[in-house]
Amino acid sequence: MQLLRLGAVGAEQPAVRTADGTVFDLRPLTEDITGAFLADNGIARVRAALDAGDLPVLADPGDGSGQRLGAPLANPGKIVCIGLNYRDHAEETGADLPTEPVLFLKTPDTVVGPHDEVLVPRGSVKTDWEVELGVVIGRTARYLDSAEAALDHVAGYVICHDVSERAFQAERGGTWDKGKNCETFNPMGPYLVPAEDVADPQRLGLRLWVNGEIRQNSSTAQMIFPVAEIIRYLSQFMVLRPGDVINTGTPAGVALGQPEPKPYLRAGDVVELEIDGLGRQRQTFGQA
Amino acid sequence: MQLLRLGAVGAEQPAVRTADGTVFDLRPLTEDITGAFLADNGIARVRAALDAGDLPVLADPGDGSGQRLGAPLANPGKIVCIGLNYRDHAEETGADLPTEPVLFLKTPDTVVGPHDEVLVPRGSVKTDWEVELGVVIGRTARYLDSAEAALDHVAGYVICHDVSERAFQAERGGTWDKGKNCETFNPMGPYLVPAEDVADPQRLGLRLWVNGEIRQNSSTAQMIFPVAEIIRYLSQFMVLRPGDVINTGTPAGVALGQPEPKPYLRAGDVVELEIDGLGRQRQTFGQA
Repeated sequence: MQLLRLGAVGAEQPAVRTADGTVFDLRPLTEDITGAFLADNGIARVRAALDAGDLPVLADPGDGSGQRLGAPLANPGKIVCIGLNYRDHAEETGADLPTEPVLFLKTPDTVVGPHDEVLVPRGSVKTDWEVELGVVIGRTARYLDSAEAALDHVAGYVICHDVSERAFQAERGGTWDKGKNCETFNPMGPYLVPAEDVADPQRLGLRLWVNGEIRQNSSTAQMIFPVAEIIRYLSQFMVLRPGDVINTGTPAGVALGQPEPKPYLRAGDVVELEIDGLGRQRQTFGQA
Repeated sequence: MQLLRLGAVGAEQPAVRTADGTVFDLRPLTEDITGAFLADNGIARVRAALDAGDLPVLADPGDGSGQRLGAPLANPGKIVCIGLNYRDHAEETGADLPTEPVLFLKTPDTVVGPHDEVLVPRGSVKTDWEVELGVVIGRTARYLDSAEAALDHVAGYVICHDVSERAFQAERGGTWDKGKNCETFNPMGPYLVPAEDVADPQRLGLRLWVNGEIRQNSSTAQMIFPVAEIIRYLSQFMVLRPGDVINTGTPAGVALGQPEPKPYLRAGDVVELEIDGLGRQRQTFGQA
């Protein structure tokens, strides 16, 4: 089951695609796919409504060939990001391996749809890519005692593209946040897959191509801190709420890790990302 | 003119207090004080409605003695914070003076009312205070050419308490965000003062007391980067939108800057903050 949002920017409508590819309108059930909907047993209610035949089929299957796909979650509360969470990526950036999760933030207004244009910021010469497993929180997590039950707080999974400007991030003073929050820097989607449909979030291949050339090719099995431990850890420092998203880090292969001249992104470049079972994104980069 | 939100957590209602202390109900005009309301000429509409006598007087003057005061802005979009923006504070922390603004983020769900309880996080031994001038954005700012017109993007000003956990911030790996986003860590209010009622945001005294002892006592004249320059600068790295808030940094006097044993906050401590013309906050600290 895949939760989708279809339509123009700011006018997306919620939908669900079932295993046979049929797309159903979710509007009889909810105005939008939000944290509140997920917390209110939303996914179980979608399943029940599908079983009962309560949802109308959408005329347009909305598989990307027709209507625009929005990010599959409306109004994310916060986006908490884990840095250096794959050993090979930490090594390629020259950073020490973290002994506990490294945290930074993206603001929710960086989120765009999975196929929307991404803008190279003005003055940027080091815009970089990062494919990441995104975790959508469905139940409040606060001071969890152990990682054991942490995955019970996950509503589902999604691809996030953690677009990054390395000069802004590391050469302009202050924290990484300066290079992580430019306009359009968090494509999300194409769809949200409920947690119960993902057998093991630590066994998902993830890949990224730039202009057709594969640049990242790894598995979430390579995470230093797995999803459950990340949730437990973060819950000691902040409250995770329904509709929050965690970007869980990226494997090796980013531009920053390449030999000079590093192949940073420019207007016209095309980036494609996929994660097993979570679909595929494709962005053409433009200039802000 | 002071914009207020009165009522229980999650059920606040918008109000306005005029110079003579009368509090009027804003509900005939808007459901809440949001970025969208501010962007939609909200403050001018409040003035016009007051002039026309269109707003009913509230029975309870809501001056803090009666109903709870919420944060005066509902659903802030993002909270962008400037670090080390007062020379004496940078010196007391042992940091170099920044050559350009230092940026970090707080998540909107850290916001509480100006007199609400603030929680010392579990495991914290270095919870610290920071009085700050908060800037509420009323008009989108994107790649501003100069600081000259930057203040046109400000809807108003507010006190923010940038509560900080220094061990989480600096001793646990990664960015400062880890010590800035604990539950209840951004008391805001008591009210939002429209920009046109603040003659000069760079001439505001700001003060903070802990258990009655004054700890911070400075002026926004001491900022390294003034508000207009901060807005211009930030707009090169991110889009500032109506309802976003900028915490503009804190002057010297925080616990971190004191001799050992540093007087970090514990449950039972009372912190009071004020900024000229922007009112006063008072929080009793509790234990998470």
